[in-house]
Amino acid sequence: MYAIAVHGGAGALPAELVSSEKRARYVQGLSLAVDAGYAILEAGGSSLDAVAAAVRVLEDDPLFNAGCGAALTREGWAELDAAIMDGKEQRAGAVASVRHVRNPVDLARRVMEKSRHVLLVGAGAEEFALEEGLPLVANTYFRTEERRFQLAAAQKGREVSELMPDARGSRGVEGASSSGPAPIGSQGTVGAVALDGRGNLAAATSTGGLTNKRQGRVGDSPIIGAGTYAKNGVCAVSATGHGESFIRAVAAHHIACAVEYRHLTLEAAVRELIHSRIPALGGSGGVIAVGPSGEVVMDFNTQGMFRAARSSSGWRQVAISASAETETRSA
Amino acid sequence: MYAIAVHGGAGALPAELVSSEKRARYVQGLSLAVDAGYAILEAGGSSLDAVAAAVRVLEDDPLFNAGCGAALTREGWAELDAAIMDGKEQRAGAVASVRHVRNPVDLARRVMEKSRHVLLVGAGAEEFALEEGLPLVANTYFRTEERRFQLAAAQKGREVSELMPDARGSRGVEGASSSGPAPIGSQGTVGAVALDGRGNLAAATSTGGLTNKRQGRVGDSPIIGAGTYAKNGVCAVSATGHGESFIRAVAAHHIACAVEYRHLTLEAAVRELIHSRIPALGGSGGVIAVGPSGEVVMDFNTQGMFRAARSSSGWRQVAISASAETETRSA
Repeated sequence: MYAIAVHGGAGALPAELVSSEKRARYVQGLSLAVDAGYAILEAGGSSLDAVAAAVRVLEDDPLFNAGCGAALTREGWAELDAAIMDGKEQRAGAVASVRHVRNPVDLARRVMEKSRHVLLVGAGAEEFALEEGLPLVANTYFRTEERRFQLAAAQKGREVSELMPDARGSRGVEGASSSGPAPIGSQGTVGAVALDGRGNLAAATSTGGLTNKRQGRVGDSPIIGAGTYAKNGVCAVSATGHGESFIRAVAAHHIACAVEYRHLTLEAAVRELIHSRIPALGGSGGVIAVGPSGEVVMDFNTQGMFRAARSSSGWRQVAISASAETETRSA
Repeated sequence: MYAIAVHGGAGALPAELVSSEKRARYVQGLSLAVDAGYAILEAGGSSLDAVAAAVRVLEDDPLFNAGCGAALTREGWAELDAAIMDGKEQRAGAVASVRHVRNPVDLARRVMEKSRHVLLVGAGAEEFALEEGLPLVANTYFRTEERRFQLAAAQKGREVSELMPDARGSRGVEGASSSGPAPIGSQGTVGAVALDGRGNLAAATSTGGLTNKRQGRVGDSPIIGAGTYAKNGVCAVSATGHGESFIRAVAAHHIACAVEYRHLTLEAAVRELIHSRIPALGGSGGVIAVGPSGEVVMDFNTQGMFRAARSSSGWRQVAISASAETETRSA
């Protein structure tokens, strides 16, 4: 048994997404990511390689808020965070606030495998990238026109969605947070969780963070235990949402503890976090998780979550809104 | 009932510490810190104010690896991390990799109280400090002669102890890690945990990290759930040790979950983490914790831990080695 799930952020869904051809592009991006990871699992590769490959696809896709197409800081920079964790030995690597590393998830993995450390931030992380021979790119590589429009809209006081770049700012955003209980309605972040054929779990997460964020602001994505966590025999988790709430809840580890120590099912553990604990802290978002038997859970308390999953049982799903609208099952 | 505990790092104890007058200076520093926090609790102040005050005393004391007297990066800079958490509403603030903020714990608290964020790093954190009117100081303020000697010794390949500055490098270090199971024998970090008269728990941690560390390396201290955590009714925790292991173990939250969900006593939960979970990850260190009834736990798997505690029952302890050598109890 092996399985993989990916996410591309959770939030309020812009109206145009539901009807337009833009939707097809998101479905395509998610499909490419989940299939890239799945192909590795199918060939007998590791869950660690699978989640890294899936996240890399989403980082390279300008539609998602990670790598190219990241949300911009208030000064107009892309500042990127990422983490990866290996459930087998619970090794972990993470980077935060990097500006020139094309694929932050690759740097996070180098930190895990080639350094004595778990978390490197800022210029020191980029120095390490150079020592490791990872290519650096100009910050302009990450900054798409849509994200610049979005930043300008946010700075005019409009509510914007990190979930998707939108050349017209927030126009067409339905169900934005001002009407709901959550302070922030939409968060982009990408991530992947996987179980490989040897029973090893892994998780990875990557993000550009919040539009119009302060320089140096770091959310839950690169925080082991908050946005990213994996432990063999328990679960692998990648979160997306209002990062501050997920940090305060120690969200991913909260799910793992609920499974390991309270013997909740993975589904119940995720549900409790997403529909009770996170809202109690004023937050919103979603989680993808996979357990040691290959069970996949994808849950969120927002209008939608970009997500896809595939398992060796023949199940494959790509979905955006609450209903699982694109699902195939084969015996 | 109210109580406070502080730590100033855990590790192998240099031989001179056991016999010399240097020991008296450490005892004095720890006493000043615990008494500063206790005075706030005694006057009816909050646990949040108490832990901040205690940590500030230790940051200002050049003997401890936080604030003035911090361990230096391989390039000779002081790079500081700190976090604070309020158990009542589980608000949290943290900063990492700052170079010019005299009291990082104060900046962490501003992040918690005055920003929408939990974690700010690097130059962005210092920009926020300036906006908030916190005084910046030259990096030279933090760099003591002893720490420069220590860095030079480390760069000559000698084993050094972050636990205490030593003008002669590692000379006199007994029981260094090369002979033990832990990869790193001594870690400086300061922290405090407290319960106030209204039943509110709080925790704070501050550090200069590892001697000869890479620029941008961040350990467990500013990671909510790893080095710092507080939740009313459960516990407040501050850790010191091999930060990477504490991050991978999500150490502080692991203790809280063991208490809340497995109904372990706080003492048993700390013991499991320190003597089983952390060594299994190849790490070493210690933890201070306080529970909702004011019970204080201070445990470590190293030769010693700089620590002190005081409670409204009249109990007061200041200790360095395994035995609690300076204890007073009044009825």
